[in-house]
Amino acid sequence: MNDKGFTVVAYNRTTSKVDNFLANEAKGTKVQGAWSIQELCAKLKTPRKIILLVKAGQAVDDFIAQLEPYLEPGDIVIDGGNSHFPDSIRRTKELESKGFLFVGSGVSGGEEGARHGPSLMPGGSTAAWPAIKEIFQKTAAQAYGEPCCDWVGETGSGHYVKMVHNGIEYGDMQLIAEAYDILKRGLGLHEDEIADIFLKWNKGVLDSFLIDITANILKFKDDDGEPVVTKILDKAGQKGTGKWTAIAALDAGTPVTLIGEAVFARCLSAIKDERVRASKVIAGPQKEPFRGDKQLFIDDLEQALYASKIISYTQGFMLMRETAKELGWNLNYAGIASITDNRAQSVFLSDITAAYRKDTKLESLLFDDFFNKAVHTAQPGWRRVIAQAVLWGIPTPAFSTALAFFDGYRSEIVPANLLQGQRDYFGAHTFRVLPGKENEKFKSGEDIHVNWTGRGGNVSASTYIA
Amino acid sequence: MNDKGFTVVAYNRTTSKVDNFLANEAKGTKVQGAWSIQELCAKLKTPRKIILLVKAGQAVDDFIAQLEPYLEPGDIVIDGGNSHFPDSIRRTKELESKGFLFVGSGVSGGEEGARHGPSLMPGGSTAAWPAIKEIFQKTAAQAYGEPCCDWVGETGSGHYVKMVHNGIEYGDMQLIAEAYDILKRGLGLHEDEIADIFLKWNKGVLDSFLIDITANILKFKDDDGEPVVTKILDKAGQKGTGKWTAIAALDAGTPVTLIGEAVFARCLSAIKDERVRASKVIAGPQKEPFRGDKQLFIDDLEQALYASKIISYTQGFMLMRETAKELGWNLNYAGIASITDNRAQSVFLSDITAAYRKDTKLESLLFDDFFNKAVHTAQPGWRRVIAQAVLWGIPTPAFSTALAFFDGYRSEIVPANLLQGQRDYFGAHTFRVLPGKENEKFKSGEDIHVNWTGRGGNVSASTYIA
Repeated sequence: MNDKGFTVVAYNRTTSKVDNFLANEAKGTKVQGAWSIQELCAKLKTPRKIILLVKAGQAVDDFIAQLEPYLEPGDIVIDGGNSHFPDSIRRTKELESKGFLFVGSGVSGGEEGARHGPSLMPGGSTAAWPAIKEIFQKTAAQAYGEPCCDWVGETGSGHYVKMVHNGIEYGDMQLIAEAYDILKRGLGLHEDEIADIFLKWNKGVLDSFLIDITANILKFKDDDGEPVVTKILDKAGQKGTGKWTAIAALDAGTPVTLIGEAVFARCLSAIKDERVRASKVIAGPQKEPFRGDKQLFIDDLEQALYASKIISYTQGFMLMRETAKELGWNLNYAGIASITDNRAQSVFLSDITAAYRKDTKLESLLFDDFFNKAVHTAQPGWRRVIAQAVLWGIPTPAFSTALAFFDGYRSEIVPANLLQGQRDYFGAHTFRVLPGKENEKFKSGEDIHVNWTGRGGNVSASTYIA
Repeated sequence: MNDKGFTVVAYNRTTSKVDNFLANEAKGTKVQGAWSIQELCAKLKTPRKIILLVKAGQAVDDFIAQLEPYLEPGDIVIDGGNSHFPDSIRRTKELESKGFLFVGSGVSGGEEGARHGPSLMPGGSTAAWPAIKEIFQKTAAQAYGEPCCDWVGETGSGHYVKMVHNGIEYGDMQLIAEAYDILKRGLGLHEDEIADIFLKWNKGVLDSFLIDITANILKFKDDDGEPVVTKILDKAGQKGTGKWTAIAALDAGTPVTLIGEAVFARCLSAIKDERVRASKVIAGPQKEPFRGDKQLFIDDLEQALYASKIISYTQGFMLMRETAKELGWNLNYAGIASITDNRAQSVFLSDITAAYRKDTKLESLLFDDFFNKAVHTAQPGWRRVIAQAVLWGIPTPAFSTALAFFDGYRSEIVPANLLQGQRDYFGAHTFRVLPGKENEKFKSGEDIHVNWTGRGGNVSASTYIA
């Protein structure tokens, strides 16, 4: 912020850190120090804009409690930590009830972003945005000529969007891993050849930071000339935000299947010893050599990856939409899509931004002309790749769930009618009638129960007595 | 319990219900009444065995608090409600600290089970089991010559197992729904033909209550001769235990993907209006007539359903195993498998019971000879069915995720090495070396970081500075 011409006052409860900071990193800048919270607040112009960068949880509440005696109505408290969104919802309400304003802001971009421009996802008290907009948008990274920061929405929406953003990253990474697996185990290609494929893809619709670094990783050799990636233990760790997103999806009743599978794929990778034992007693299919045209198959794979990615973002935005509906948020979807950090930058997100700018109330990415066309174009290759992987015995949990979602989503009728029949049969849970099938006994809007066990067409809506 | 010769004292806080019960349902039996908690406790022999059947949540705690003044050391409080397992863990500890015993028991089987023998899944204070075993096992339903009740394990394990049992039911139902969809939309069969297929399957490895009722449902006609199932709105409801199981799996880091997909499939079914809109703007693949042998394909489908079901139970038992490890439970897996309620009865569960009796420490169902052979036999047909459904455009989220799990589980190496490379590249999250690939720089047991952006083979484990 100092780099961008804003006056900054730095405070830390360990005051020697303030001394140290002023004597080193901040030397020669206009950054001022404060050695108490009282002094911090005294030095700031009103309405004060105070950013907390402390550990998520109790520490945030403690710090806010210490600030409050020195705040005046209209002052803005900003939490830039990794808070879980329900806490940010609560804090917005608490501070607003006392006349203050609160902003919970997702911050993304790692160390490089922290120093040279992160992506910022602020949400909370709507009245706070005009006061912090210039600071936030100038401080944020810039991509495709736009700041990687826009107002997200009310209360905890900033931290919510950050969580979903991380979850989507889990999905993107899993999709790339599956493509790598298909190229390696399916087509039998070497890491160098696979890197070249990713480099080529990075010039097309898949252009993105993750594709780019994947090529770099695959090319990277150890001293003996072997690709380092082949020496890495295949047990993936996780920090928890993917899991949070999957749980939020389950709680919201929204089918965010791809992030769910991506999280579970990491769980499966983690039980390495059990997998090794399983590999010795469970045989896969007879591996037959690939007889088709390799380049055509690689082109299909590019389309499979692209289409699956479209589905993953469709699901992510669906989750945000449902949560916004439930919590009364007015989310800025175009803004959210434009908030790309240095790890997510892609043509892809610019296309999503464009879609939501064109129609701010867009129900689904798949209804946007551009993505609708893209997914139709990708469809044949996407199917061929999955069918081939299934026959080869190469696991594609994320590709497959993306396609299953796509085929379910575009189905006017799914077989949940049978589920409802089963639930009514064994638990008298009742069902509704399918529009167009109404009659005397099956009336629209009514909870219908059928006495299934009375054979011979004796259908009634009476109470089930088994 | 009265039916089985045990003396029962009935109490309800609304004492008129006690009067009513004695004057009606309990008339002519040995059931005694109690009009106060004091009286209830006075009439029971010590050690008292008191079963609460009240609403899950605060009501259970309130009732226990009212009981405590009248309890003596060694008395047993049993919660037969639908409590969430963390509450049962807490209650076991609280009551044991006061010298009492606690049992949290899953009860399953609906209205019919409630009156004529449910399945019972008791867990909690180990010392309570000998005192209640005879009552519980005689009162429970009997299947395949055995009581549908056995001791599950410590603290909240009874309610935990009940939750997983429900989650598995979500999976079984989804698998059946997908098979129905393939037969209907894929092969173009009528409900009557599909019912006959299910009836035939019910005489083979798939023999189970759910397959049986599915055939009944499909055959059931409305007065106009149309199958009732085709008039049911395809929006599936849910009561929440499937979701609880999926969240428990995410929390335990266990890949219970099939229940996850089953829950999400219900969520996708629920957004019917959006699906109808999507069906008008998103086209599937060109539908080509099925050219193969229909009967062979139907046999493949039977195997696909069977193999997917084996995977679902493998995942469910894996979840119980991981949770038991984390919470220090000694679970009785054979007993758990033998606890089938009237909705789950199947040859399948007898086979699982046999597997765990043969090896009480069985690591995975897929390591048992019977299931190992079954899944190998099923494998070719399973793959053909999914590949065909993918090309047809019929969604098979549960079949597909089962196969993806199977292929991942039997893979000594999964592409999580690339994920770890990406995580280390952009976040310096470090990785471990693959066994067999250790060298000077990549040492076993060490957290390794590579300076990926320094091109040309400069590999080091220093701190990442981007």
